[in-house]
Amino acid sequence: MPHNAAATGTAALSANFANLRVDGPRLWSSLMETAAFGRTLKGGLCRLALSPEDAAVRRWFVEACESSGCTVTIDQLGNIFARRAGSDPDLPPIAIGSHLDTQPTGGRFDGILGVLAGLEVLRTLEHAGVVTRHPLEVVNWTNEEGARFAPAMLCAGVFAGAFDLDYALSREDKNGVTLARALAESGFDGTAPVGGRPLAAHFELHIEQGPVLEAEGREIGVVSGVQGIRWFDVEISGLACHAGTMPMKLRRDALQAAARLAVAVDEIGCSDPDTSLSTIGIFEAYPGSRNTVPETIRMSVDLRHPRAEGLDRLEAAFHAAAEQIAAALKVMIEIKPVWSSPPVVFDPRVVDAIAAATEALGYSRRSIVSGAGHDSVYISRVAPTGMIFVPCENGISHNEAENIMPIEAERGANVLLQAVLQFDSAT
Amino acid sequence: MPHNAAATGTAALSANFANLRVDGPRLWSSLMETAAFGRTLKGGLCRLALSPEDAAVRRWFVEACESSGCTVTIDQLGNIFARRAGSDPDLPPIAIGSHLDTQPTGGRFDGILGVLAGLEVLRTLEHAGVVTRHPLEVVNWTNEEGARFAPAMLCAGVFAGAFDLDYALSREDKNGVTLARALAESGFDGTAPVGGRPLAAHFELHIEQGPVLEAEGREIGVVSGVQGIRWFDVEISGLACHAGTMPMKLRRDALQAAARLAVAVDEIGCSDPDTSLSTIGIFEAYPGSRNTVPETIRMSVDLRHPRAEGLDRLEAAFHAAAEQIAAALKVMIEIKPVWSSPPVVFDPRVVDAIAAATEALGYSRRSIVSGAGHDSVYISRVAPTGMIFVPCENGISHNEAENIMPIEAERGANVLLQAVLQFDSAT
Repeated sequence: MPHNAAATGTAALSANFANLRVDGPRLWSSLMETAAFGRTLKGGLCRLALSPEDAAVRRWFVEACESSGCTVTIDQLGNIFARRAGSDPDLPPIAIGSHLDTQPTGGRFDGILGVLAGLEVLRTLEHAGVVTRHPLEVVNWTNEEGARFAPAMLCAGVFAGAFDLDYALSREDKNGVTLARALAESGFDGTAPVGGRPLAAHFELHIEQGPVLEAEGREIGVVSGVQGIRWFDVEISGLACHAGTMPMKLRRDALQAAARLAVAVDEIGCSDPDTSLSTIGIFEAYPGSRNTVPETIRMSVDLRHPRAEGLDRLEAAFHAAAEQIAAALKVMIEIKPVWSSPPVVFDPRVVDAIAAATEALGYSRRSIVSGAGHDSVYISRVAPTGMIFVPCENGISHNEAENIMPIEAERGANVLLQAVLQFDSAT
Repeated sequence: MPHNAAATGTAALSANFANLRVDGPRLWSSLMETAAFGRTLKGGLCRLALSPEDAAVRRWFVEACESSGCTVTIDQLGNIFARRAGSDPDLPPIAIGSHLDTQPTGGRFDGILGVLAGLEVLRTLEHAGVVTRHPLEVVNWTNEEGARFAPAMLCAGVFAGAFDLDYALSREDKNGVTLARALAESGFDGTAPVGGRPLAAHFELHIEQGPVLEAEGREIGVVSGVQGIRWFDVEISGLACHAGTMPMKLRRDALQAAARLAVAVDEIGCSDPDTSLSTIGIFEAYPGSRNTVPETIRMSVDLRHPRAEGLDRLEAAFHAAAEQIAAALKVMIEIKPVWSSPPVVFDPRVVDAIAAATEALGYSRRSIVSGAGHDSVYISRVAPTGMIFVPCENGISHNEAENIMPIEAERGANVLLQAVLQFDSAT
């Protein structure tokens, strides 16, 4: 129960908080103001992690948070925690996190919306004089994109125990600059230990980076989890021969086997179209001569599903199709797994708080699974976690053309605010 | 009727000629002896047109023909005509032609068998004291392979009026050496005009360069013609998107459209498997990233059929499939014709003579359409033309591993001899 609710009674105050809204124009103004740091000619952003542009937006963020009465802590990986005290000092903080770094030709909203909406929540509460039970911490996670230092989501990953601190500090960019050196150069080489402390929850507002909400006309995506991914390399070996002299029935055509396998992989993904994805992104034919039947095809297969058993089913169907095609076309098909990322299911308490807040705000919504990775993927290992999606124009992201409307940012931030308040009251 | 038949009467002499056979070991010995000119480490040949190695085998050939009582003429393109006089000086010559040049990593039989079997026919007739009615001319056509000077079948093409003499002389190899200069350097810059004189017929013995005769256990292929070829470039344009966020049903996946089109093209070729061929040899996917749905596919389509109306039917089915797939998958499919070679149907009198000779010799045979181009394709424009195929090991050609058995060379040369004699008597 919020602190200043004590004076007037829970019912009235619940109603009062339920009417609390963010300041949409102020949020939009923050988004546009910070878009000056690393702006590209095409109106996007190039704000690589810990670059001078990233350091500039970080300083802006720290100052804005401190101006709203927060205490800012920076850990050894430059993760920034802007803490607003709660009424119960024994409770762990509710975190609201995302990232301010971008792709080299990135947009103005991917990650940034989540951090600045967190700031807007702090400002709204401050302006309304509301004190939550839990402390709130708005977090800027370092190097989410992985565009400067691989892998992606590196510093949230260390916070959650997925990577070692030293591993992270030793990552190098393409010029051989380590993360440790970049932290020192940016002035964000903090001293707080990375992780090792509880969070009551982690909320993340993000643009969808896909077209589903826009296509269906839904205002809010209540993210139930992040799909699992399995990557395979496929090599198909047939027999090269002359296109003019080898009869169709005597051929062992690697390309025809690959084409049939590609169609089968597509059909496997479409068999369960609301949850499954299957993609052939790489397809190379050798020797690649117009009048020679191809001998070798190398292709990639990308299978995605929100549940491990779903991935197992897709993979089994893929193997079965490959086996059947290899036999029918008299070719060899070799399948090599190259990477796997298990599915994440978000905490029902956080997801329910988001759904309830969306409902109370009267926004249209749908449950959605995140196709891309986010800081929340790692944080979900150590804290109850959930995400809110808002639509983005044509589903375009990782692109300077990335765009959203002000009202979409405002709706997302209102859901964030109300979901945090609901979670704060309920736990 | 052959000249020396006059003394003893037609019936007896027909029987006598019917028993005439080439000397198989002598033919094989010629093949093996000339395989020294341009031999590669892997036992194949590198004997590019008018190279020192080609000049050496040409000198060998001229000397062998002259030793067999022939008169050798060299035209302005280095085509070599070894003429054996007939009994009727008013008749045009029956030609037996093929080529002595090879691919850079070619075999010992492609083209060479046809020329040296022609020589073996001359030697057999000379040894038996048989004089045909028509003069005979064994021809080595210059630059059939096109491996040194593009296009292929260049000098038979000029003989037949398909290209100008000056065009041919001005062709350059990759070092900028013109055909004219290569002729002069090789010493085979003859003075006889190219073409412009009648041939009674043109016979060509060749290895099949495909697997059909071997697979069916047939000893001789009676070639009915050369299939027509149509080449197309296909560009498929969809929309690149993230493999993790774009639902299957919202995709415009260029690769999936291309895979379906590849399967359709294969099915079109297989719908008439005895006569049609269809091949996708080039298939390139862009941007070619594992987790991006491909935006653009560039692929080649190669359609072949022995008849123009067959090619029309294949092409119509291909266009229809592309149209249907473009609509179903919401992509653009652009089809650009890039080359076309019309089908050739050989002269029934020559084909029948070959079939009758094969029958009389007791060899198993099948009618076959040539999948590859040959000097006979052009010569068929100006003279009744036909070809004889013999099997080659595993259908492999344009390869140092190209191989045939001595008995196969011998059978082919016997058919050549008997078919020429039949044609000579009948016309």
